[in-house]
Amino acid sequence: MVRNIAVEKLNELPLNRQKLELAERKCIGHPDSLADGIAESISQALSRAYLDECGAVLHHNTDQGEIVAGESLPKFGGGCVTRPMYVLLTGRATKTFDGVTIPTDAIALEAARNYLSNTLEFLDMNKDVIVDCRMGTGSSDLRDVFRACEKKHLPYANDTSFGVGHAPFSDLENVILAVSNHLDEVYRPKNKVIGTDIKIMGLRQEEEMNLTLCVPMVDRFCADMNDYKEAVTRVGEEVQKVASGITDRRVTVDINTGDNYEKKDAIFLTVTGTSAEMGDDGSVGRGNRANGLITPHRPMSMEATSGKNPINHIGKIYNLLSTELAQQCAQELDGIEDLYIRLLSQIGRPIDQPLVAGAQFVAAKGADEAAISRGIEEIIDAGLADITSITERVIRGEMKTF
Amino acid sequence: MVRNIAVEKLNELPLNRQKLELAERKCIGHPDSLADGIAESISQALSRAYLDECGAVLHHNTDQGEIVAGESLPKFGGGCVTRPMYVLLTGRATKTFDGVTIPTDAIALEAARNYLSNTLEFLDMNKDVIVDCRMGTGSSDLRDVFRACEKKHLPYANDTSFGVGHAPFSDLENVILAVSNHLDEVYRPKNKVIGTDIKIMGLRQEEEMNLTLCVPMVDRFCADMNDYKEAVTRVGEEVQKVASGITDRRVTVDINTGDNYEKKDAIFLTVTGTSAEMGDDGSVGRGNRANGLITPHRPMSMEATSGKNPINHIGKIYNLLSTELAQQCAQELDGIEDLYIRLLSQIGRPIDQPLVAGAQFVAAKGADEAAISRGIEEIIDAGLADITSITERVIRGEMKTF
Amino acid sequence: MVRNIAVEKLNELPLNRQKLELAERKCIGHPDSLADGIAESISQALSRAYLDECGAVLHHNTDQGEIVAGESLPKFGGGCVTRPMYVLLTGRATKTFDGVTIPTDAIALEAARNYLSNTLEFLDMNKDVIVDCRMGTGSSDLRDVFRACEKKHLPYANDTSFGVGHAPFSDLENVILAVSNHLDEVYRPKNKVIGTDIKIMGLRQEEEMNLTLCVPMVDRFCADMNDYKEAVTRVGEEVQKVASGITDRRVTVDINTGDNYEKKDAIFLTVTGTSAEMGDDGSVGRGNRANGLITPHRPMSMEATSGKNPINHIGKIYNLLSTELAQQCAQELDGIEDLYIRLLSQIGRPIDQPLVAGAQFVAAKGADEAAISRGIEEIIDAGLADITSITERVIRGEMKTF
Amino acid sequence: MVRNIAVEKLNELPLNRQKLELAERKCIGHPDSLADGIAESISQALSRAYLDECGAVLHHNTDQGEIVAGESLPKFGGGCVTRPMYVLLTGRATKTFDGVTIPTDAIALEAARNYLSNTLEFLDMNKDVIVDCRMGTGSSDLRDVFRACEKKHLPYANDTSFGVGHAPFSDLENVILAVSNHLDEVYRPKNKVIGTDIKIMGLRQEEEMNLTLCVPMVDRFCADMNDYKEAVTRVGEEVQKVASGITDRRVTVDINTGDNYEKKDAIFLTVTGTSAEMGDDGSVGRGNRANGLITPHRPMSMEATSGKNPINHIGKIYNLLSTELAQQCAQELDGIEDLYIRLLSQIGRPIDQPLVAGAQFVAAKGADEAAISRGIEEIIDAGLADITSITERVIRGEMKTF
Repeated sequence: MVRNIAVEKLNELPLNRQKLELAERKCIGHPDSLADGIAESISQALSRAYLDECGAVLHHNTDQGEIVAGESLPKFGGGCVTRPMYVLLTGRATKTFDGVTIPTDAIALEAARNYLSNTLEFLDMNKDVIVDCRMGTGSSDLRDVFRACEKKHLPYANDTSFGVGHAPFSDLENVILAVSNHLDEVYRPKNKVIGTDIKIMGLRQEEEMNLTLCVPMVDRFCADMNDYKEAVTRVGEEVQKVASGITDRRVTVDINTGDNYEKKDAIFLTVTGTSAEMGDDGSVGRGNRANGLITPHRPMSMEATSGKNPINHIGKIYNLLSTELAQQCAQELDGIEDLYIRLLSQIGRPIDQPLVAGAQFVAAKGADEAAISRGIEEIIDAGLADITSITERVIRGEMKTF
Repeated sequence: MVRNIAVEKLNELPLNRQKLELAERKCIGHPDSLADGIAESISQALSRAYLDECGAVLHHNTDQGEIVAGESLPKFGGGCVTRPMYVLLTGRATKTFDGVTIPTDAIALEAARNYLSNTLEFLDMNKDVIVDCRMGTGSSDLRDVFRACEKKHLPYANDTSFGVGHAPFSDLENVILAVSNHLDEVYRPKNKVIGTDIKIMGLRQEEEMNLTLCVPMVDRFCADMNDYKEAVTRVGEEVQKVASGITDRRVTVDINTGDNYEKKDAIFLTVTGTSAEMGDDGSVGRGNRANGLITPHRPMSMEATSGKNPINHIGKIYNLLSTELAQQCAQELDGIEDLYIRLLSQIGRPIDQPLVAGAQFVAAKGADEAAISRGIEEIIDAGLADITSITERVIRGEMKTF
Repeated sequence: MVRNIAVEKLNELPLNRQKLELAERKCIGHPDSLADGIAESISQALSRAYLDECGAVLHHNTDQGEIVAGESLPKFGGGCVTRPMYVLLTGRATKTFDGVTIPTDAIALEAARNYLSNTLEFLDMNKDVIVDCRMGTGSSDLRDVFRACEKKHLPYANDTSFGVGHAPFSDLENVILAVSNHLDEVYRPKNKVIGTDIKIMGLRQEEEMNLTLCVPMVDRFCADMNDYKEAVTRVGEEVQKVASGITDRRVTVDINTGDNYEKKDAIFLTVTGTSAEMGDDGSVGRGNRANGLITPHRPMSMEATSGKNPINHIGKIYNLLSTELAQQCAQELDGIEDLYIRLLSQIGRPIDQPLVAGAQFVAAKGADEAAISRGIEEIIDAGLADITSITERVIRGEMKTF
Repeated sequence: MVRNIAVEKLNELPLNRQKLELAERKCIGHPDSLADGIAESISQALSRAYLDECGAVLHHNTDQGEIVAGESLPKFGGGCVTRPMYVLLTGRATKTFDGVTIPTDAIALEAARNYLSNTLEFLDMNKDVIVDCRMGTGSSDLRDVFRACEKKHLPYANDTSFGVGHAPFSDLENVILAVSNHLDEVYRPKNKVIGTDIKIMGLRQEEEMNLTLCVPMVDRFCADMNDYKEAVTRVGEEVQKVASGITDRRVTVDINTGDNYEKKDAIFLTVTGTSAEMGDDGSVGRGNRANGLITPHRPMSMEATSGKNPINHIGKIYNLLSTELAQQCAQELDGIEDLYIRLLSQIGRPIDQPLVAGAQFVAAKGADEAAISRGIEEIIDAGLADITSITERVIRGEMKTF
């Protein structure tokens, strides 16, 4: 069956050259990111258990869940969490299949606790957090849709929904992602003082970029206010350095602009490195999109990508696939300045047959637009044909969802 | 202080004339909309109580919360909810101020229960739903920022965040909103069989529009499968009629395409008119944007608008204001085909002084672009000067947030 | 099969004539009594639903549950509950049987909310209380035991457990029960100021009786401290009058001895008439025994009577039966001054065949001990033969369990 | 001030020589005992934290709490918990004092998790249990009563309540306690197959004693039904041996009489050694009394001993003290066959001044009753004078409460 793919050329200025651009990233320890990470780790754990026990991934959706902030008393040298964070696991999962009972609640609980333990080094799992579970079982008609796929056909879309992706990244987007990666992978291992709940807000006005970061400091590594100030200064310099290595534009960096050094409790000092310890709740799907960014100048999908089942949940699969296909097009085809891919499902259709796959691109001056158009269509078509590879890589934990 | 307002003209095809457009609305009884509505009703109730007791709206944020689906056994003629839905209220609110204790938990509980009772006519509040509450108190530094505003200055932004709005609505957007309003305000009062948890997915390909609706039917009004089928047919015809009255484009309508009439439980039959009764969880901020739509071809903000305090929470105020300003510009200024307004705050700045207010417009052929540009700047400037009117109207319940 | 009934005469002074005696009653609004009442109302509602839907009472036990106190701000003229009470329903119940699904969670929720609403007139069900539910399904072997009874045999005991009852009541016990009934049925209807969470502690030293009562006053009926003091004085006089009508012994009465009139918050003023609003948790089975009393000079069973299924749960049936049989003996047989009946089951035996039924009596001087002994044995034997009448009356709500 | 101590001689047959006697013990892993143990460990942890941080034990009561059973799939060789147990911590504790914040929720959570981890070797703390916390702060008047004690006076009784103790133990009581200790301390360390949730029900009819034990077997140590049967047989022989070493009476032993070897799921096989994994809820104060037993032939207090604060909570202190004083009397004074000590407080009186301390004893033939009477009075008086030693030993964890 021929796929309904519509490619369109846009006559507009690529975002990277427009006057104003905003973008944001909530790093790994942000409450919304924690919620996403927990949701996705549960889905992966369930998928593996289903494969082990039943030979197939059964219906589940854990793309919900709430982190209710605790209360803490950070202090120089080391404070404590006074009221534990509360994490509620919800969603639903198939609990019995063909006479086999899968301990879905226990699997979810373990996955969530392990994820938190791995992500928040300074969270005491025995006293700083309560992980609760109220998972249910799915509605029967959705499960029916899903069972169809066990007959070796492709799964049918669980819903009428869509995914969106774009490429290439703008300067600002690249800078934000690079700073985030650098802080997580290079800087923090040597500077444990910076917590994981970093928020990076990027603003570009013409050729000037400003990065405003909220960086929680871990109190046990700050003996006093001087330590805190030094940590703020040093991370600011590091961010400046990383950013300047990515872009030629002028970059200014602000760290913790809300701080007031006159008042001890008006700085971003934390016990565990996340504001979930003392005031900020988190939810699945409220933070980064599947590409790791929040981009108010770009089309985005509201669908949570994390926690949805990777078999037939379009809100997940099409977000991941459209993002990947856009990046592939931008890499393989010459002359793409901006590209948006949207995949729209209709409930009950095979997942490789979206109701429509739409692409819009902005071509560089002089680019072969017909070739680009053709190339995009071919890449989308091939990507849809191979759509189950998304499922497999998700289960193996190889795809980032936030 | 002069405001930093940047207006830019875009050379692009307005969305309404592009080849492909998607848009969506989750109506009032969708689990995500329920979560939004509860969150907003709590914030309003708290604001009023604070005003009554303390003469000022105190710090609170109830822009979180989770609806965990129950289980139900719909059947022709009337079934029952077998496991109650579970609603968790979270967020935080100031509980004592100047010696006065405000019963925030009790206020939140009552507001949430009243909202559910008013919104879901067929939900038995005594047995079909559990409303639980785990609200906390805010982190102290955020409260500090807020207290500043009591000294008769404008409040300071609580965060570095942004809001986005657009206008005018495209054909497709207008159709979706009109259908939603018609079903809620005209059709359902006379046809109680249609539940409130309607999802409208709109797709426009060139001059063809398709509306795919999921419409839950309330079981007590369906004696048998024929009744159900007739209800589906009739609502489809009604949608067709409404849509055709709004647009000249050709419209096709699909209702409940996932239904399978061979299998009794593969239709969208419900006890209460919402899928929250049997399988679909909901979260604040996961559904419609402040303008009532999800528009993957438009810039959107990920910030939840519902439930945030209307005093200094930028994620709320700037989304509402930018939406309103865009609409005002589109109405008052000639020749705007597309307009995007983005307001970016910086934590600690007065809320009428965004770090940057950016506008991008697509002008109609022959329009006076300089006049448009000037007009937009003036409207934005005046809107920011009068920003506290947003707060007031939110508290009075006059602004839709989802 | 002959029943194993062992009757024994005790050579001891009946309690009523011993030097010292303590007894206590937690009235209807005490948190522990509320927990008992909720548990029992759920069991009754489930039993009726099972009978309606399945023609038999299915396995359930709801003899657990917890009331977590809220927080309140009582004040003269009327205060408010600031943090709702939290009621957790637990236990387990059979949810599906022979293809029928029984909405056990919804039934439990409704029964609990109705019970609270009926018992606590001043509790606002919409904002002063959260009723949550975490009921499960039973362990399979217990269910097996129960299914046996559907084959028209008598049910088999669910456990190895016992029940205890005594009669006649001592002077002190009679006084406490009379005071409790009078306050609930006669005095409160005309004096709404007294709350339902009354605790009556009785002490008899030889011929002197002291009653110490904690009586919560409902704040909306106390305009000021004078009203409060008057309410205390008047209820004290009433108790004195009722008690003196029951016993010839000298009675002194103390009301709210912990009050300190110098400090406004050191009196027993409440919003709703129960301390569950502000500090006292409650649990099933922690308060009164099946006869409505706590009697530390008498043998007692630790088994909760409320909430257990009335079909085969020995902890309930044998407590109710032994109490009733003891009272019947004391009424019908001359010369019994004290009588204790204990029924011990063994798991798996028919409930009319206890492992042993033991009775111990203290005879009045000159009584025909052989006749008493024979009479007791006959009454016990007949009572066991008719044991299912207990079940029936429990389901019809005709037996008090606390 | 002279204490009100009333000693009375009873002319009755000591229980040990009456015809019929029942007694019971719920061992350490029984759900009610788990709830008791958790409650007490929290109180101890809070007491120590208060002493460290504030120099005094502040008001708290954690004598509530609920264990909601999970679901499990035990199988020979090792099964799994499919739905985690849910433990709700409630009660209340002072959270701030003199400017110091005590992390009471975090302390409670840690104490509970540690207790479970130490008590249930085969419970996976990461996936088999959810520990939740809804602790509040106390009602203000109770706190007032307590603060009085910081002024170096003795604390005042928090309530009008009583404690009861008896000594010496009967043959049956001694046998039950000995069997329990032997299984916990000697047999299980070498025979991990027996779980901790053992219930021992003892029945003595004249000179015949029957012990009925429910002994959960841990599935990973039973390869098949033969292993299970052997484990049952062996523990039965061990109990027989221990019991026969304690009493000269004839002892019969029944283990798991509810088992049905024909049906795989009708045996007492467990994953973790406690029925809390699959069907039996537990509550504080529903199980053993302070002496470790449930004795329906003896006077008992309904007050939970575990979890109450050891400073001024009479329900705890008087139960512990009366039990200890009775044992001391029975050891030090010749000729006591049965002794009951009851201590009754009145709210607001110093804890060393009960409203009345009553003792009743049964003397051996020929004993010097006057000397016994005098001795009891002296021992009670001295015990009350030294009452704070109870507090200290409770905090140090030296006193068993269940």
